[in-house]
Amino acid sequence: MRVFGEFIREICVYPHPIFPKGAMFNLLPQGSVSSPAGFTAVAIPTGLKKDKQLDLALVYSERDCACAAVFTTNQVVAAPVIVDRETLAMNNTAIRAVVANAKNANACTGEPGLASARETQRLTAVALDIRPDQVLLLSTGVIGVQLPMDKIRAGVETAGAILQRKEAKEQREERGREAAQAIMTTDTRPKHLAVAVELPGGVVTIGGMAKGAGMIHPNMATMLAVITTDARIAPDVLQTMLGTAVHHSFNRISVDGDTSTNDTVLLLANGVSGTAVADAHSHTLFTDALAFVCTELAKMIVKDGEGATKFVEIQVTGAATDADAHAIANTIATSPLVKTAFAGSDPNWGRILAAAGRAGIPFNQNETSLWVNIPGAKRRQLVAQGTPTDYQEVDAAHIFAQPEFQVKLQVGMGMGTAVVWTCDLSQEYVSINADYRT
Amino acid sequence: MRVFGEFIREICVYPHPIFPKGAMFNLLPQGSVSSPAGFTAVAIPTGLKKDKQLDLALVYSERDCACAAVFTTNQVVAAPVIVDRETLAMNNTAIRAVVANAKNANACTGEPGLASARETQRLTAVALDIRPDQVLLLSTGVIGVQLPMDKIRAGVETAGAILQRKEAKEQREERGREAAQAIMTTDTRPKHLAVAVELPGGVVTIGGMAKGAGMIHPNMATMLAVITTDARIAPDVLQTMLGTAVHHSFNRISVDGDTSTNDTVLLLANGVSGTAVADAHSHTLFTDALAFVCTELAKMIVKDGEGATKFVEIQVTGAATDADAHAIANTIATSPLVKTAFAGSDPNWGRILAAAGRAGIPFNQNETSLWVNIPGAKRRQLVAQGTPTDYQEVDAAHIFAQPEFQVKLQVGMGMGTAVVWTCDLSQEYVSINADYRT
Repeated sequence: MRVFGEFIREICVYPHPIFPKGAMFNLLPQGSVSSPAGFTAVAIPTGLKKDKQLDLALVYSERDCACAAVFTTNQVVAAPVIVDRETLAMNNTAIRAVVANAKNANACTGEPGLASARETQRLTAVALDIRPDQVLLLSTGVIGVQLPMDKIRAGVETAGAILQRKEAKEQREERGREAAQAIMTTDTRPKHLAVAVELPGGVVTIGGMAKGAGMIHPNMATMLAVITTDARIAPDVLQTMLGTAVHHSFNRISVDGDTSTNDTVLLLANGVSGTAVADAHSHTLFTDALAFVCTELAKMIVKDGEGATKFVEIQVTGAATDADAHAIANTIATSPLVKTAFAGSDPNWGRILAAAGRAGIPFNQNETSLWVNIPGAKRRQLVAQGTPTDYQEVDAAHIFAQPEFQVKLQVGMGMGTAVVWTCDLSQEYVSINADYRT
Repeated sequence: MRVFGEFIREICVYPHPIFPKGAMFNLLPQGSVSSPAGFTAVAIPTGLKKDKQLDLALVYSERDCACAAVFTTNQVVAAPVIVDRETLAMNNTAIRAVVANAKNANACTGEPGLASARETQRLTAVALDIRPDQVLLLSTGVIGVQLPMDKIRAGVETAGAILQRKEAKEQREERGREAAQAIMTTDTRPKHLAVAVELPGGVVTIGGMAKGAGMIHPNMATMLAVITTDARIAPDVLQTMLGTAVHHSFNRISVDGDTSTNDTVLLLANGVSGTAVADAHSHTLFTDALAFVCTELAKMIVKDGEGATKFVEIQVTGAATDADAHAIANTIATSPLVKTAFAGSDPNWGRILAAAGRAGIPFNQNETSLWVNIPGAKRRQLVAQGTPTDYQEVDAAHIFAQPEFQVKLQVGMGMGTAVVWTCDLSQEYVSINADYRT
């Protein structure tokens, strides 16, 4: 077991409620949803994507899983979200499989789309010899087009057949990574990892995969994540843990309530390790590791944002409440003018203050201070108490030209703080999104 | 006096509370702030912009003006906004001049910036032989840089000297148009017009100029407008009229409360025509004409948005309240994914529904319907009761390829409606904003 204290400090440059210094777990960067015991994954090409690219992923547990989920808060929800909500309302203790397809979101497809989702659930159950209410669905891709059920039907059958095979551990790990590849849309790289956590009762593993791209921020590029663990955890505890982890990770890259028609995070716990997360100490260790997995996946999503060339951490301090700080940080992080300034390496910090000022949160502009820095390096103050400092333009420009930098805005003397992660808005982003369907 | 019934119907394709059919006024497209009697304008180059471009404008009234104003709701406000608010709190009955500079917003400049603004007010008063509290200020441009007072000082003196000259009407009209040019930043063309309105008591004129650019929507590209009239109107009535007109015009291109550090709309009424707006009928006629001036200026701003190649009208109907409809329309109009789809002429209408769904307003997706059309042409329905119609992709693509088109989203059976105007988000936008200061 290695101690990742340094690493954790680095990813958590700002005091973070989730990661106490010295949290202990073993990072498995090549890990995936199939790393935890008892989970298998398979990915196949169904023809939804061109050129036989992987586009359908199946995650399967040999035992019943407790399941927690966080869904989009959009008023317009895709058919798979409707079906998953229904399914989990009936059964959150015996989930066995998640089937995910890329290229078609099955959103805004009305009754026919809902029928297709239910049919996918039924077909998967038949292929895996389980009940339909043990299958969850994920879809991502274009909105408003009916799911081509012939491709889905053949795909699910093929995937089910592959899952029957007995395969070596390496092969299984590889398939887990392929699943992360299958759910990609405009993502340029698969997003997956796993961690092993030493609990008092034994070692458990948490694996995860995600897809994002889009600018994520304030828009509805779909964010999907599947997290698996072989720990044994009660569903209600699991839901609380996931809620906390999502709040400090995926919600830091997407405005609260400001989500796509399909956004979904699923957490499945099958208990195959035999180790339970029951006592308070295990609970803390597991929650830390889960938050780490979610944060890493969230940051992978931002770094792989459409056309992104910069990864910027926005810290807001001194607000009345954390929620106020979060609102201000989100407004900065989603401002096209701020994001284009990042793209142009232009230290046009006035745009940062102006964005903060329209977040709807009262503060006194004469109490605002602004710093920027390269991670690990000394902060440079650009604004002190509402007035520009005598900083050198060349120094500020140097920081804004980095692929990663941090912005800290203090808006007063309150205790409210927040950190969010964002990327720049480049011409490439426009190009990708203007031509998405063509 | 010509009747602009047809024209009004065209600019007002959607039932609009402001323009009853048959509103009567004479449009003067080449008119400006100097069209109303008793107003003069002058524009000069001070060196703030390069190559002797006009960058300082002075609008002067030979008589005291009642003045109404609408300012940004941003928490961070520029020095000129602070000074104008203070000034109008003391004196909204005897304003004589507005001095505006481009290239520097005098925002986020702290105490030194505030001192510069007060100095500008004082210098202008001296140059025009009026009191400082009779001078209002406007600034637009880069944030966080101190105003170069040597240029402002020399500029105000020169402008004041030019104003002393007796000039022919044509010359005066020309200077009014030049003032609109002087306040441009990334605008590609000056924005000005005037209308003559026949009231029972006589003809009055309303002139206006504005600058916008930026994407305007959700961001803080400064929107400035100065509107002048030779009608005689009490300040409190004037303020109510301006509030209504702004609500239905400039607030339709900029999210409520979602404004820059400098946004300002000023309305000055000097009464030189001798005609009062006192009775109810005059009030209605004048309000219509004022709303028309504001709407035209607002639409000019959108059409000249940074990098804009499309002008799109978003209509939302069937919401519970107008405010709900407005919130949904604004979310659609400001969505980068929607705006990039517009740029790419991609009828990816799913993004429109998904944006609507994250506006924070509850509605039932199974009751949503969507139409698109070229202005004046028949609407084409893409979504009926939450399900795609069997429309032809080529027909939808044809509409999205137009320089102007309309989108209508019905979200239920409520009476709430709203219309907003937006433009596309092009690579040119990113290019302009990434390199703004360089």
